[in-house]
Amino acid sequence: MNVTVARRTRHYRTVTFDARRNAVRLIEQRLLPHRFEVIATRDFRQTAQAIRDMIVRGAGAIGAAAAYGLAQGARAFRGRQLRPFFPHIELVYQTLQAARPTAVDPVNALDAVRGAMSAGDTVEEQQALALAAAEEFANDDVQHCAAIGRHGAPLIRDGMRILTHCNAGWLAFVDLGTATAPLYAAQAQGKEFHVYCDETRPRSQGATLTAWELAQQGISHDVIADSAAGHLMQRGEIDLVIVGSDRTLGRTGEVANKIGTYTKAVLADRHGVPFYVAIPLSTIDWRLQSGREIPIEERDGSEVLGAWGRTPRGRRKYVRVANLSSTARNPGFDVTPPELITGIITPMGIFKPTELWANRRKLG
Amino acid sequence: MNVTVARRTRHYRTVTFDARRNAVRLIEQRLLPHRFEVIATRDFRQTAQAIRDMIVRGAGAIGAAAAYGLAQGARAFRGRQLRPFFPHIELVYQTLQAARPTAVDPVNALDAVRGAMSAGDTVEEQQALALAAAEEFANDDVQHCAAIGRHGAPLIRDGMRILTHCNAGWLAFVDLGTATAPLYAAQAQGKEFHVYCDETRPRSQGATLTAWELAQQGISHDVIADSAAGHLMQRGEIDLVIVGSDRTLGRTGEVANKIGTYTKAVLADRHGVPFYVAIPLSTIDWRLQSGREIPIEERDGSEVLGAWGRTPRGRRKYVRVANLSSTARNPGFDVTPPELITGIITPMGIFKPTELWANRRKLG
Repeated sequence: MNVTVARRTRHYRTVTFDARRNAVRLIEQRLLPHRFEVIATRDFRQTAQAIRDMIVRGAGAIGAAAAYGLAQGARAFRGRQLRPFFPHIELVYQTLQAARPTAVDPVNALDAVRGAMSAGDTVEEQQALALAAAEEFANDDVQHCAAIGRHGAPLIRDGMRILTHCNAGWLAFVDLGTATAPLYAAQAQGKEFHVYCDETRPRSQGATLTAWELAQQGISHDVIADSAAGHLMQRGEIDLVIVGSDRTLGRTGEVANKIGTYTKAVLADRHGVPFYVAIPLSTIDWRLQSGREIPIEERDGSEVLGAWGRTPRGRRKYVRVANLSSTARNPGFDVTPPELITGIITPMGIFKPTELWANRRKLG
Repeated sequence: MNVTVARRTRHYRTVTFDARRNAVRLIEQRLLPHRFEVIATRDFRQTAQAIRDMIVRGAGAIGAAAAYGLAQGARAFRGRQLRPFFPHIELVYQTLQAARPTAVDPVNALDAVRGAMSAGDTVEEQQALALAAAEEFANDDVQHCAAIGRHGAPLIRDGMRILTHCNAGWLAFVDLGTATAPLYAAQAQGKEFHVYCDETRPRSQGATLTAWELAQQGISHDVIADSAAGHLMQRGEIDLVIVGSDRTLGRTGEVANKIGTYTKAVLADRHGVPFYVAIPLSTIDWRLQSGREIPIEERDGSEVLGAWGRTPRGRRKYVRVANLSSTARNPGFDVTPPELITGIITPMGIFKPTELWANRRKLG
């Protein structure tokens, strides 16, 4: 997507590969929204570290980073013998996979690259196939998001006020994002609309990442406190909700996403506001029988008890907001039941949540 | 209520009067929860300034501060002639009333004190009556909150998990508070329960003031992000909601309160969790015909775009959280309709919201 740095506007992807330097280039997302910086990892260990340290985050983006990391590791091998090459690749694979052990996208990405490599007869061929497969993985991610945008854009009409929660934007993918893809597609079609970004406490990804993205693309928006959406819906000031998903159950249509998503779905239902979830196919879980089986990560209380921001001098700083002797509960995700979801926007079209299972061949 | 400062536990009221020094003593609420300090205002102008600067905030507390401020101003008059005394009192009244022009409690308090003074025949008598009336106003506030506690405590059973929003605690009144009064009364009865304090962005009064209060009184509690309550209700982990109110419509039973209250009522309704509003009689508005007539204050966006907290060194600091070029909408209050409210806890007992009007003689 487009980013303005020091008055120049350039098109960026979240993750790219510099073949000459054998480096993975990543937007340093921890500095956003206050500073835009692209870093280059020198080797696969640094790439794994960047995934672990959340320099890169978001389903599609960490998938692409892992894919490029495996190609980077393969290309760094200096011999011509396949026998020592195989354990080297195994080490690279394990190192990258261990960087974010609960995520499914890196595993899919690594398997795709390793699978493609096996068609090569020499180290050199396998190295070339690894890079080609990683590029394909990243390009597919962009194409899937573009397809979500094409299917979702017709939902957006001129003058609409659209609520979104957290960041399922291009920073979470290689480009375009999922929940944001329909916005960018509608903007390209010349539609005018306004976006309300839920702040999304405790980590504030709406106020930081989504607001930054929309500002960079020149989309009209306001940040709101997570508590304000109900009031705005009551006053008829929200026409549409689009969110992303960390895991969608193919059997039931239940959607796990950032804490607070469920609350927005309940409010939208009460006020007759359409509630859409935009997802890449990789986040559909065909295995689990019920949303109650989804483990809900209980994160560190310090996130709730304080806030990260920047000082007037531009320094990144954590301040403690809550009473010092108090503790916090911090569930990171919640599960929205299918009856509250108007539709699920996928790269293959929009489905009712209960229609996913019947379309599992198409979507699987 | 009880406050531990440097390991000594003492009973404090939010607002008291030091007759010897003719000073109003106030808890400096802007320093909470990170520092506990009681300040003394030297004259009525300083008292008005303290109300304006939010050193003291909350319906009952600013009412008592205004009442004491009028007595303070009256007692500072050095002559014995009533003729110059009257314009002096008028100046004091206007100065205190102008400190928080939209609030109703200071006006009621000032009228009560001025009314009581008129029974005196001399300056000295009027000065004594002013102080007595101010003390009575403050004591009544405490008695009303105690009555709310008596009526509300039976709602709380051993082992309950109770959600509250914002701060309608003793810091907002002279003592005990409204939403918190049933908690303190139940604690005094030996009941054990757990409180979830909604953070209450953007000003975080739940994480700061309510959490501090509960910690001081030794009540088990956790702070949660405003987005987390829906998930906790879904999992059956909240048994009761008690909130306060800034204005309750006597004709309709609609409740205006801190932004986010409506969302909690919608969630509680969906999950069959009882939702109670605790109010002093002074916040009942018998005039308005509909909640749509209640003006909703749109506050400064900077509250949403950043957060106040303290640094590890203990300094109070504002950090900018949101993207720098983004703006915010910041409605301060919302309106909850009567069908979502299980009961309204008043000093006169618990009423259905639609029963207020039929009981207006008793409550008015």
